[in-house]
Amino acid sequence: MIVVIQCKDQVGLVSAISGVMAEEKINIVSMREHVDTQNNRFFARLVLQQPANEAALHSKLQAVLPDDAVIHITLQPNKKIVVLVTKEYHCLGDILLRNHFNTLGATVQCVIGNHTTLQDICRRFDVPFHLVSHEQGSKDIFEQFLVNTIQQYEADYLVLAKFMRILSPDFVARYPMRIINIHHSFLPAFIGANPYRQAYERGVKLIGATAHFVTNDLDEGPIITQQIIPVNHSLTAADMVKAGKEIETAVLAKALQLVMDDKVLVFKNKTIVFDV
Amino acid sequence: MIVVIQCKDQVGLVSAISGVMAEEKINIVSMREHVDTQNNRFFARLVLQQPANEAALHSKLQAVLPDDAVIHITLQPNKKIVVLVTKEYHCLGDILLRNHFNTLGATVQCVIGNHTTLQDICRRFDVPFHLVSHEQGSKDIFEQFLVNTIQQYEADYLVLAKFMRILSPDFVARYPMRIINIHHSFLPAFIGANPYRQAYERGVKLIGATAHFVTNDLDEGPIITQQIIPVNHSLTAADMVKAGKEIETAVLAKALQLVMDDKVLVFKNKTIVFDV
Amino acid sequence: MIVVIQCKDQVGLVSAISGVMAEEKINIVSMREHVDTQNNRFFARLVLQQPANEAALHSKLQAVLPDDAVIHITLQPNKKIVVLVTKEYHCLGDILLRNHFNTLGATVQCVIGNHTTLQDICRRFDVPFHLVSHEQGSKDIFEQFLVNTIQQYEADYLVLAKFMRILSPDFVARYPMRIINIHHSFLPAFIGANPYRQAYERGVKLIGATAHFVTNDLDEGPIITQQIIPVNHSLTAADMVKAGKEIETAVLAKALQLVMDDKVLVFKNKTIVFDV
Amino acid sequence: MIVVIQCKDQVGLVSAISGVMAEEKINIVSMREHVDTQNNRFFARLVLQQPANEAALHSKLQAVLPDDAVIHITLQPNKKIVVLVTKEYHCLGDILLRNHFNTLGATVQCVIGNHTTLQDICRRFDVPFHLVSHEQGSKDIFEQFLVNTIQQYEADYLVLAKFMRILSPDFVARYPMRIINIHHSFLPAFIGANPYRQAYERGVKLIGATAHFVTNDLDEGPIITQQIIPVNHSLTAADMVKAGKEIETAVLAKALQLVMDDKVLVFKNKTIVFDV
Repeated sequence: MIVVIQCKDQVGLVSAISGVMAEEKINIVSMREHVDTQNNRFFARLVLQQPANEAALHSKLQAVLPDDAVIHITLQPNKKIVVLVTKEYHCLGDILLRNHFNTLGATVQCVIGNHTTLQDICRRFDVPFHLVSHEQGSKDIFEQFLVNTIQQYEADYLVLAKFMRILSPDFVARYPMRIINIHHSFLPAFIGANPYRQAYERGVKLIGATAHFVTNDLDEGPIITQQIIPVNHSLTAADMVKAGKEIETAVLAKALQLVMDDKVLVFKNKTIVFDV
Repeated sequence: MIVVIQCKDQVGLVSAISGVMAEEKINIVSMREHVDTQNNRFFARLVLQQPANEAALHSKLQAVLPDDAVIHITLQPNKKIVVLVTKEYHCLGDILLRNHFNTLGATVQCVIGNHTTLQDICRRFDVPFHLVSHEQGSKDIFEQFLVNTIQQYEADYLVLAKFMRILSPDFVARYPMRIINIHHSFLPAFIGANPYRQAYERGVKLIGATAHFVTNDLDEGPIITQQIIPVNHSLTAADMVKAGKEIETAVLAKALQLVMDDKVLVFKNKTIVFDV
Repeated sequence: MIVVIQCKDQVGLVSAISGVMAEEKINIVSMREHVDTQNNRFFARLVLQQPANEAALHSKLQAVLPDDAVIHITLQPNKKIVVLVTKEYHCLGDILLRNHFNTLGATVQCVIGNHTTLQDICRRFDVPFHLVSHEQGSKDIFEQFLVNTIQQYEADYLVLAKFMRILSPDFVARYPMRIINIHHSFLPAFIGANPYRQAYERGVKLIGATAHFVTNDLDEGPIITQQIIPVNHSLTAADMVKAGKEIETAVLAKALQLVMDDKVLVFKNKTIVFDV
Repeated sequence: MIVVIQCKDQVGLVSAISGVMAEEKINIVSMREHVDTQNNRFFARLVLQQPANEAALHSKLQAVLPDDAVIHITLQPNKKIVVLVTKEYHCLGDILLRNHFNTLGATVQCVIGNHTTLQDICRRFDVPFHLVSHEQGSKDIFEQFLVNTIQQYEADYLVLAKFMRILSPDFVARYPMRIINIHHSFLPAFIGANPYRQAYERGVKLIGATAHFVTNDLDEGPIITQQIIPVNHSLTAADMVKAGKEIETAVLAKALQLVMDDKVLVFKNKTIVFDV
């Protein structure tokens, strides 16, 4: 059982939280805490040995914590995701494989594509695929179709696995901090279109990928994780695209693992990631 | 102020520790804890906002913790080190620079060399250098001279900064978990002499370095930190030695930073490192 | 078109080779060469702009090179592979995905498993799966069945994608430098069984994986590529196994890419890898 | 002896170059070449076993290469550098150590600082230090003093080792592709002032450093090399500055090694780096 807490900081929070656990005879397997002194904010994640009564534990914690405390108690693994794609297979393929072998930490409810390219691979894994074309009308209509499709499923998170359409603020507002995107550069470098072409033109010696939550500001949401690989003059822009796919797949997989394990907390535009 | 604790694990330890702090109105800036479930062992490191009375805090913690609890309370930076070297300058030079500019987190009390090669660089930094030759007699006599020299100084740790002599169990026993060595391979690969030659002959695609505490078993002590760099067929064994020096310097610097910040706990033959 | 050459070193080899190309009006897109001065051996890899007559080019090169020259001229992609597996899906899944989307640089002819665990995933990708159980008789009989199955297909390389049986010298001798294995440690550390358990016990701060050609000496063949990831005290041996799977998949994928692109030359027990 | 060539690409260049070497009975230890097909440009670097007559070799190469060929022939190590600093010691200290122990691949002629902070460390290494204050008058006057000081020495390269003043186009134009800067971010992210503060505010999960040649466009010159290190929420902006110094030192050291070894060619705004 995992407990994630954030609230304003004050003396005695760790004591208060661990006191509740001691009182309930619950063993804390691991506890991570962080204080953002600039924002006077406290964050904690606890892994508990025994499952406890969620409601009871929640109210006991609420009683000893500041009023603004946000407390999440979860039993893993129970996350559900909807994946949005366009044409590239590498991220989706990796997700479908892990989903199929129950190592994703989540269940893929369905895949939505704005092209039919990836329908076949979903079929092979017995995962529902929905075509929602962006060419049927306005952006509003496109997004309404997306929403309608998503609403057919329970979904804790939407995963943009190389979904090449920009979503409107209205759409994003429906799923606050619940949309995860993989961007094909080490943000904030190369915001916007064709980052590998930009990287090639600039002559950088490393390229990367960034998984982040989607907000209204394109490519500006809270970063979950990033990785890079070295490159050199011998790679064309096309070679960089190819090399980049490897790192995109790895970074999105890592981000999903972190989010599905409730290791990622968000405050303002930044994440607190309680990784190893 | 930093508090480091290890003891046998039981329910309520975090609560007990943080309860003491809350009672004393001490704010916990950060707290890391780890339970080794295999060995039923609890480890914690706390950074406290206010300096407190060390003796009082120690006894209050002792009172709420199991009898076997080992509690260290320290005010940084106050470590003192003695550095042992042979002929290579790269690790010593880096240490002397940081020492000179007060960024080492420790004070170099003196440098002991079994050759005079590095006497001049110590003189330039106004750090005492002592020649203790290994060619004056038996290993026993050599080590007795080392001990005599070290005893002239207070030293929390001995740092073997490319000291190319193997120390006897008797010597090591005098400084338990207080001798830090840099080994020029990613242990446990290439134990013993000429690791870069061994790496070259084996045709590995990465070489590395390992900082570890010294125990009686050569190259077998608890590992503090390790790093690697990629290599390929174009490097000769000599090129690997050269490339390796960069990583040796970086790894020893990192290890010293961790140890001087009281971020490294040792249990049996392994370390718990509470890094970022 | 790719030309790979190795022979004893002598003055004028680059001139001789590039002279043939100039004479034939073939543009050299890229050329990499390496001289192993210790063994007096020359290695080169050329990417040519235009396809040329293979036989004619081969004989012209033979005429200007030393008698011992080994010359391979290939048009990509035309490699064929047979994959051997046991129960773990991560490496095979990645290979099947790339194979399905034509980004492997090779064609998977069939998969052979000594368990049925991975039969279903092969079926989903329309790739033939053959069960060859190791429990039907002696090791000789097991390997004879393997050989019989492999012989039904053309195969440039056998890929051991977490195939957990040790192959006999007789079997290995049938496919010299044509068997690629993924070993779950950064060799030469942790040779043999349970490397992650060994890594956990040793308390290393990084774990890795190694792709290598298989020879008679277990885990001692020429290394193609290696990578590592950082770990710490918070990972159990089981966590290391899980984290290791990510790096195993990545390392085997990289090795296959290098081998399928004819970027890997072997001499004695080492590889020359003409990567970027 | 090292030969570096760039010219427009055409069929037969490798043959022409290696033909000259064969004719002169010069053994090529290693040869790297690259064709930028987008710009139709050829680049090569050769390491020759025997020293040859430079002028003779130059004219023989000129005779077989296109008219626009730029040919550099150098005997290592013979580079001379002038280092410009402000107050931070880490890059300069590393350079002075390597210079002192003859592992820099260059000789530090003098250090110029716009503060006196680093005068003492230069004195300790017997390297001339010149104070050129930026507070004595206009930027023009400041730069004229810099030029006057530099002119007292032979200098192949100027190294900005955390020199915190922006140089004018006029100054830069005097030393085209001869000024090397270390920028404290992985460019093009965080151009301009306070990159670590920017990185902290953005919540990135990696920070880095970039060594580049200085051009008129601030932070936009050809990149020589870049590296990153992972960071997380637990680092304050000040912690990032501290962690960043380690990577700045390493990146500048690597860049200097590459440039001093004549492994870096520049064309338009990009570098071709013939590293291992």
